[in-house]
Amino acid sequence: MEICYFNGKYIPRDDVRISPDDRGFLFAEGIYEVVRWYEGYFYDMESHLTRMKRSLRETLIQWAEEDTFPLIAMELIRLNNLENSSALIYLQVTRGSAKRTHSFPDPPVSPTVYAFAKDFIPENNGKESGIGIMLKEDIRWSRCDIKSVALLPNTLSYQEAVEKGFFECAFVRNGNITECSHSNIFFVIKGIVYTHPESVYVLSGVTRKNIIRVARKAGIPVIEEAVPEKMLGNVQEIFVTNTSGEITPVVIVDTQVIGNGIPGPVTRIIREKFNDEICSIKHS
Amino acid sequence: MEICYFNGKYIPRDDVRISPDDRGFLFAEGIYEVVRWYEGYFYDMESHLTRMKRSLRETLIQWAEEDTFPLIAMELIRLNNLENSSALIYLQVTRGSAKRTHSFPDPPVSPTVYAFAKDFIPENNGKESGIGIMLKEDIRWSRCDIKSVALLPNTLSYQEAVEKGFFECAFVRNGNITECSHSNIFFVIKGIVYTHPESVYVLSGVTRKNIIRVARKAGIPVIEEAVPEKMLGNVQEIFVTNTSGEITPVVIVDTQVIGNGIPGPVTRIIREKFNDEICSIKHS
Repeated sequence: MEICYFNGKYIPRDDVRISPDDRGFLFAEGIYEVVRWYEGYFYDMESHLTRMKRSLRETLIQWAEEDTFPLIAMELIRLNNLENSSALIYLQVTRGSAKRTHSFPDPPVSPTVYAFAKDFIPENNGKESGIGIMLKEDIRWSRCDIKSVALLPNTLSYQEAVEKGFFECAFVRNGNITECSHSNIFFVIKGIVYTHPESVYVLSGVTRKNIIRVARKAGIPVIEEAVPEKMLGNVQEIFVTNTSGEITPVVIVDTQVIGNGIPGPVTRIIREKFNDEICSIKHS
Repeated sequence: MEICYFNGKYIPRDDVRISPDDRGFLFAEGIYEVVRWYEGYFYDMESHLTRMKRSLRETLIQWAEEDTFPLIAMELIRLNNLENSSALIYLQVTRGSAKRTHSFPDPPVSPTVYAFAKDFIPENNGKESGIGIMLKEDIRWSRCDIKSVALLPNTLSYQEAVEKGFFECAFVRNGNITECSHSNIFFVIKGIVYTHPESVYVLSGVTRKNIIRVARKAGIPVIEEAVPEKMLGNVQEIFVTNTSGEITPVVIVDTQVIGNGIPGPVTRIIREKFNDEICSIKHS
């Protein structure tokens, strides 16, 4: 029986009931995090915790026990016997339940805190030879730096990509490719790696940050600079990154083949270095 | 005891429980409508129904019984003994509950349909002498024409306005004043009424549409054209409209006094004509 965390308690999934007054349900007033468990440890939990706190601050949601996130995550792994699995922790915090008004509840109410653990097979499993992505004008809000549950534009865009046979949807804003519906995106041009700088138009991915670090450590230059859509013809390699899928090579953008249609050498080196790091933490 | 509608049944509010897997809760994949009940009839239910169907279509949410909305609304009025009250119906439809993935559930699941009725005092009650509004850069997505529950940018912006002592927050996009956090906005310049045209940047308010009709019928010219923020100095009157509050005069924008700081004659005429119509429907 799956055990979830809900407002301070560890209870069976079927006992978790969200109020229809929950401001997560009514107003998308909530934030979330997804952390990966590698058969023994959480990858960079510290960065996830830091980002979660920032999301809470930016949405003015107060969760007094925010520092317990790593403990909750660990307890969910234990209670669900996932210690030796590849697993994900999902945590969502909303402003809580109150009579529906656009203004915040006054006095404030307790936030709703919900988390679960699940073992998983990464969605990019078997995609080592590369994926196709679709470009789409970014219809999202201009605070994409907040990891909020207001994800309707993301799911609508992603679904469109899936139905057209693509694996992801990359967004274009003001002519620049910013990020994807649930991953960051990197470009290799003449041996240099480019990715959109931290801004209100992209989520500061934990994997993004670590990939930049790992690449630089391997001697590969990384420039945090937006790549315009019209520069795509000059790009030799592309890859996308996220917590659940790590690094996935991109070989097609719309109808355009990237590089030679196979993952390029820079992508391969970065994947290897990232995997080496995962293995070395696991065995340390 | 308050009775709500939930997935085909009329049940006590306390028995309504949303699943934590609901895609309204996890992804803001849902739409809503608010209809006003005037002690005996719903105002322009037909337009609300039409808009609801459009929102469902645009978000690819299928609700086979969508045409039952007016019947559900009426039944909620009856079951909650609100026939002789001023009341609001709130209805929300989400894509339903399924294991969390960005792509839509495949095969599709039943939507979650939730509705309630409440008697209410309009939030603009006692504001006949006019309100102050704040201007803010529009941080919302570029599909504001969809009445979705992805309202985080709206509530964050509105709360900021409230905390600064304003009654509403008006959004500025590309230099134009588009609409407010939960109302449309109208400007009077030299006897002509201006409001932002229907577009992806504004919600096509039911009251907005009826105000345009009522104003024109009264011989007041209405032009559906955006008013740039920098034109504010030329504006004699402003008012905002929505379903619950009908028409509310605006006399202050940020620190700028509009007209003479009191509601102007065009606003007054339109309010009277609108109220006349409400009364005549009531007594017909």
